[in-house]
Amino acid sequence: MSALDILSFLNSGEWVSGEEMAKRLAISRAAVWKQIQVLRQRGYEVSASTGKGYKLVKKPDLLDADRISCCLQTKWLGRDMRISDEVGSTNAVALSLARDCPNGTVVLAETQKEGRGRLSRPWASPPGGIWMSLILKPKMPLNLIYQINMAASVALCRVFSSLFGLDAGIKWPNDLLIRELKICGILMEVGAQVDRLDYAVVGLGLNANNNLSGFPAEWRTTSLAAQLGHDIDRCELICRILEEIEVAYENMGSKDIYEEWRSRSLTLNRQVRITSAAGDLVGQAVDLAEDGALLLRTGDKLKRVLAGDCIHLRPMQAEAL
Amino acid sequence: MSALDILSFLNSGEWVSGEEMAKRLAISRAAVWKQIQVLRQRGYEVSASTGKGYKLVKKPDLLDADRISCCLQTKWLGRDMRISDEVGSTNAVALSLARDCPNGTVVLAETQKEGRGRLSRPWASPPGGIWMSLILKPKMPLNLIYQINMAASVALCRVFSSLFGLDAGIKWPNDLLIRELKICGILMEVGAQVDRLDYAVVGLGLNANNNLSGFPAEWRTTSLAAQLGHDIDRCELICRILEEIEVAYENMGSKDIYEEWRSRSLTLNRQVRITSAAGDLVGQAVDLAEDGALLLRTGDKLKRVLAGDCIHLRPMQAEAL
Repeated sequence: MSALDILSFLNSGEWVSGEEMAKRLAISRAAVWKQIQVLRQRGYEVSASTGKGYKLVKKPDLLDADRISCCLQTKWLGRDMRISDEVGSTNAVALSLARDCPNGTVVLAETQKEGRGRLSRPWASPPGGIWMSLILKPKMPLNLIYQINMAASVALCRVFSSLFGLDAGIKWPNDLLIRELKICGILMEVGAQVDRLDYAVVGLGLNANNNLSGFPAEWRTTSLAAQLGHDIDRCELICRILEEIEVAYENMGSKDIYEEWRSRSLTLNRQVRITSAAGDLVGQAVDLAEDGALLLRTGDKLKRVLAGDCIHLRPMQAEAL
Repeated sequence: MSALDILSFLNSGEWVSGEEMAKRLAISRAAVWKQIQVLRQRGYEVSASTGKGYKLVKKPDLLDADRISCCLQTKWLGRDMRISDEVGSTNAVALSLARDCPNGTVVLAETQKEGRGRLSRPWASPPGGIWMSLILKPKMPLNLIYQINMAASVALCRVFSSLFGLDAGIKWPNDLLIRELKICGILMEVGAQVDRLDYAVVGLGLNANNNLSGFPAEWRTTSLAAQLGHDIDRCELICRILEEIEVAYENMGSKDIYEEWRSRSLTLNRQVRITSAAGDLVGQAVDLAEDGALLLRTGDKLKRVLAGDCIHLRPMQAEAL
């Protein structure tokens, strides 16, 4: 018996008598009271009234390993979960664990002090967001790892749509946008030998309930709370994300995933500027290949770009070029 | 003034008077005596004789950071060096350091408790061998990392030849053999993002002066000491290896390195069995491609193999197939 058993009665949001819970759980009323205290300590607001019993007024916006593992319907993803209040970056923690932990281990933190994006750029990670890294160990050659990124992107779009009715798109190569604003970034880092992947760490930075006031305007970010007008249940969202990623992962490399990834692209048919080690390229994104490469038309040439920073140019800017 | 200054006098192996050293180093004879004690503590056998002075009888076979850094003629490789008595594996230590340490950092240990080869196989690492991992951070896309392996293999062959006159060859993909016996294995592990390498850890396991009696006969190993009939100076060898690897690294991806790598191959034109995730393949190794792949003729088909375990079959066995 744990506080979660009590919570399952209170989740309705109605008054529930202490006597009834005690009877159904075969414990004393004092034991019920004790577990109510545990819930309150975890940030649940529970009203108590003589005669009526208990009522859940507000759930805390905290990552709760018990709640997540209770509601999680995956076979293996997230079955080993490490939650911290604060870390340097969840990717760094995951990378340090990756070699010796099972496939599907998940690292979560309320905040990151040194969250990082691509090219070691800083990534703001205040409380209320979802800063999560997944350790995945598919048996695959190194040249197929783009498939992991593709599957994760598609899975996240599916969750935003099914859970919130939000239409998210994919800005190549690894950002998710809602109404042209960044809602989520994906940073995959891998450990490998010449011929095969040892592990991939898929880091997700998702603006959920976190305040965006500290984010510079030029980052063009949004959050789920800002889009929906109310906070969301992060624990539930984490479960749905892990479930969808597990499904997409097991379908990795399929035509389905590729086609959905391509059809959800916000970069396709846009004028873009790609910045990479090889320099800047400006052109029209005319296609996305099955291996994740962007096909760029610059003048009368067609170029394949495997990765890089991508800026969507507005039509106005594009004409000015 | 350090014990190494004294050592520079004694290295001739002749008697050197304490008075002369004191004079040349502008220190007292008591200070000379003190540094002789330091050398003895480090395992140097130094004879002392009234009237004759001091004579170096035997150098210790220990990794000595001061000696290595004194004799090392590299620009950047090994300029940051971490030497331990015993580690789990030097690759594991290097991987844990890699993100935050400079390019060219080197990890060395007298012994490894959990030395590992490809496919997580155990690798025996008794005292007297060279168990060394190099942290390299070339700016390169992920599909070119075979070049690092290629450069390291070529560099090691060059050292065996120039320093000892030993003719080493390369057993594809990552072993070095002398007279068909394994002298050195290379295990490269990398950290990367989808499009670019963050760091490569190149682990070398080199049988130098170590006893081979604990090695099962089927490993078919040899050591430098066994080949030469005497122990070698590991500190000197480490310097020469780092110097050659630095040269080859800066020439990485060149036609020269590829051609030398190919010409030193012991696998080319052999009957081989390749074991990989995709299953076993038996055939004739007819070529080695510029990207490190092995071209295998099986029956009337030609197959490209990027990596795998390779067994050289003897002509007799090959005919029996």
